[in-house]
Amino acid sequence: MAIHEIVHGLDPRGYALHSIEKPSAEEKSHSFLWRFWLRLPAKGRIALFARSWYSRAISEEMQKHAWEKSLKGRISQINTFERQLSDDGVVILKFFLHITKEEQKIRLEERERNPLTAWLVTPSIWNIHRHYEDSLPLIDDFIERTDTDYAPWTLVEAMDRKFAILKVYSTIIKTLEKRIEAEQENKSKKGRAKEITKPKKNAVKRRSHADKDYTREELMETFSSLQIEVLELQYLLFKRKIPLIIVYEGWDAAGKGGNITRVTRFMNPLGCYVVPVSAPTDHEQGYHYLRRFIKHFPAGGDIAIFDRSWYGRVLVERVEGLCTEPDWQRAYQEINEMEEDFISSSGGGIVKFWLEISKDEQLKRFNERASDPKKVYKITDDDWRNREKWDQYEVAIDEMLARTSTEIAPWTVVESDDKWFARVKALRTVIAAAQNLL
Amino acid sequence: MAIHEIVHGLDPRGYALHSIEKPSAEEKSHSFLWRFWLRLPAKGRIALFARSWYSRAISEEMQKHAWEKSLKGRISQINTFERQLSDDGVVILKFFLHITKEEQKIRLEERERNPLTAWLVTPSIWNIHRHYEDSLPLIDDFIERTDTDYAPWTLVEAMDRKFAILKVYSTIIKTLEKRIEAEQENKSKKGRAKEITKPKKNAVKRRSHADKDYTREELMETFSSLQIEVLELQYLLFKRKIPLIIVYEGWDAAGKGGNITRVTRFMNPLGCYVVPVSAPTDHEQGYHYLRRFIKHFPAGGDIAIFDRSWYGRVLVERVEGLCTEPDWQRAYQEINEMEEDFISSSGGGIVKFWLEISKDEQLKRFNERASDPKKVYKITDDDWRNREKWDQYEVAIDEMLARTSTEIAPWTVVESDDKWFARVKALRTVIAAAQNLL
Repeated sequence: MAIHEIVHGLDPRGYALHSIEKPSAEEKSHSFLWRFWLRLPAKGRIALFARSWYSRAISEEMQKHAWEKSLKGRISQINTFERQLSDDGVVILKFFLHITKEEQKIRLEERERNPLTAWLVTPSIWNIHRHYEDSLPLIDDFIERTDTDYAPWTLVEAMDRKFAILKVYSTIIKTLEKRIEAEQENKSKKGRAKEITKPKKNAVKRRSHADKDYTREELMETFSSLQIEVLELQYLLFKRKIPLIIVYEGWDAAGKGGNITRVTRFMNPLGCYVVPVSAPTDHEQGYHYLRRFIKHFPAGGDIAIFDRSWYGRVLVERVEGLCTEPDWQRAYQEINEMEEDFISSSGGGIVKFWLEISKDEQLKRFNERASDPKKVYKITDDDWRNREKWDQYEVAIDEMLARTSTEIAPWTVVESDDKWFARVKALRTVIAAAQNLL
Repeated sequence: MAIHEIVHGLDPRGYALHSIEKPSAEEKSHSFLWRFWLRLPAKGRIALFARSWYSRAISEEMQKHAWEKSLKGRISQINTFERQLSDDGVVILKFFLHITKEEQKIRLEERERNPLTAWLVTPSIWNIHRHYEDSLPLIDDFIERTDTDYAPWTLVEAMDRKFAILKVYSTIIKTLEKRIEAEQENKSKKGRAKEITKPKKNAVKRRSHADKDYTREELMETFSSLQIEVLELQYLLFKRKIPLIIVYEGWDAAGKGGNITRVTRFMNPLGCYVVPVSAPTDHEQGYHYLRRFIKHFPAGGDIAIFDRSWYGRVLVERVEGLCTEPDWQRAYQEINEMEEDFISSSGGGIVKFWLEISKDEQLKRFNERASDPKKVYKITDDDWRNREKWDQYEVAIDEMLARTSTEIAPWTVVESDDKWFARVKALRTVIAAAQNLL
């Protein structure tokens, strides 16, 4: 209620105010935090939330029977979300403005008497008022469990409006001053020796060629026989509103494009889309690096195929030094958390392909591309430069496979020296994953 | 229905497929074309619409009593929309796939027999099928009136699926070939003398200082007395779901920021937001220049304040040569059309302020900024460079005021040598405009 007075002192061009109501149909078909990710401020900007993920979590969970249990899940999601933002440099301030039930009644009645605002006081607001006593312990508990170092709560006694505004402002100013000070200290600490986490032992083995014997004819036949199945499964996922993410990563010229084209060819294009990922735009760079991917996460029933993905953080960005070492070191956990959040809140699945080819096979394909006028656009100087860093990439890939191959979202290495073998294996893996979800 | 087979031959990373259903609640609170603007492809990309603005226009208008009359409005909106896209270089292909009523019945029944697709055949689809004969003349008429040079229709006999696909593909290929040819011809024609439209006689007079006498005290008093009024009006607009756009343009240092801060200070921040406009990002440059503004147009009941706006096209972009002359020449009409479309489809209003200061007053303010450590960040080399082009800007400003001051969205010149006079005048103008809308 004091939002009006709080923003009063701010330059209206410098912030965005988000009034959070019930989620729209589109928002409902995504994970709980999706719409908040999309409303985060760009670096250097301020976002004010009038109500937030907290009121949504409380109001959505209170309607459930087993809310105590499911609230635990929300709390852990929220704490993870806020920690990730804080790690990215976002300052998070959370205010709970407290008034007594009597005072709330007086204020609501005041509004009702004013013909301009009377229509804003809906029956559901009175309903919340009536349950004031029931909500308090729940809110207390919630606040206690989400009062973290990186995103602390400030309780504001709001019976006196002027006092409340003063408290909010002084907290904002104090926090920002502390933060600026800390930034300056951090700067002077730069260049210190850092402890480097050793990559874990590689759990997922990369191979570019399958062991088994097979003929090209057998592969083509298998592939055709699987196509009906994949369409059927897509319908079932769609009908049950289960989303699926398919991630393609792999060496340059490993055949990602051809694999995606073949695997999607017999899906219904209305429920499936490909997200081609290239370097972030300057606009995207103003946000948390995960936001541009989360934005394209599939709604219930859709299949999203990422042609390259958030794993760029621990591959190209690591090897090329496009982010700092603490950035990519932190990314393994952030990625695992993001994938877990998607799966647990949507009931969907994530299939992750690493397309492996041998260094010799890559050279052969590069040369083919360079000498074919129809394919020459596919090969750039970047590709040759990346190839020179093959060994560094191998270290990064192995660490990625080891640290992000989780039980709920494991990596599948696709032996891709033979393109048709790779297509069959990818299609089979997608089918198995979809069946698993039904 | 053939979309599936049509996209079959396309690289799935190269297009976006939009399946257009009923608008969401958010989409409903914007103009009819808003959601299509947001789904347009970036330059060099392909967007496929499975159903489009046409099916929406027909299905929405058919439910009304006076559809024949209101359909006329839709047709003119659509023709304008497509012409604007085409002028921006977009190739538009429209296919109507025709099957007989009997064939439609057979295909729907086929789907119903398949347990995977049966649930897709809803009662409303059968309802449309039953009205097949009633719809045909309406559709014919619609197609005839929207069959333009820049966005022609192709009727496709779709009884034979293979024939239909062939026809669609051959039309696409032929059109693109023709277009590439035309591009090459255009290039060789570059450098030809162009006929330059003379600016019309200036209808809106710029003045930096008011005639009347007043004291600072009188202004402050008037300003305070208006504040309650503006909040009341905002509630009424919100209640009746009427959107309002306020545009601020003006010389550097004319006081846009201070004016916006004062005018919005007593509005409820939950229903009003400021859109600060700076140079387009590389992402935004990939689209029609109007898109980044339309994206932020207010939903019913909201007030959007643009701190600089789409008028940059005919001001800075014109003077600095950031777009070609045909680009900015065309912009006057495009802008008038866009504003008319917003007003007529939303029932809202647009208030446009030009903040005028004298060249001397600007110099005074620049020097003040340069010598005040708290304000020095506000003055950049760009400001001094723009000042050197004062005369060129005057030509552009006068032409803008003359050509875009329409009856429904007139410009208001705000004499801003005195900041408080400017704030009172702006607030008064907003109040009058809001009253006019109620």
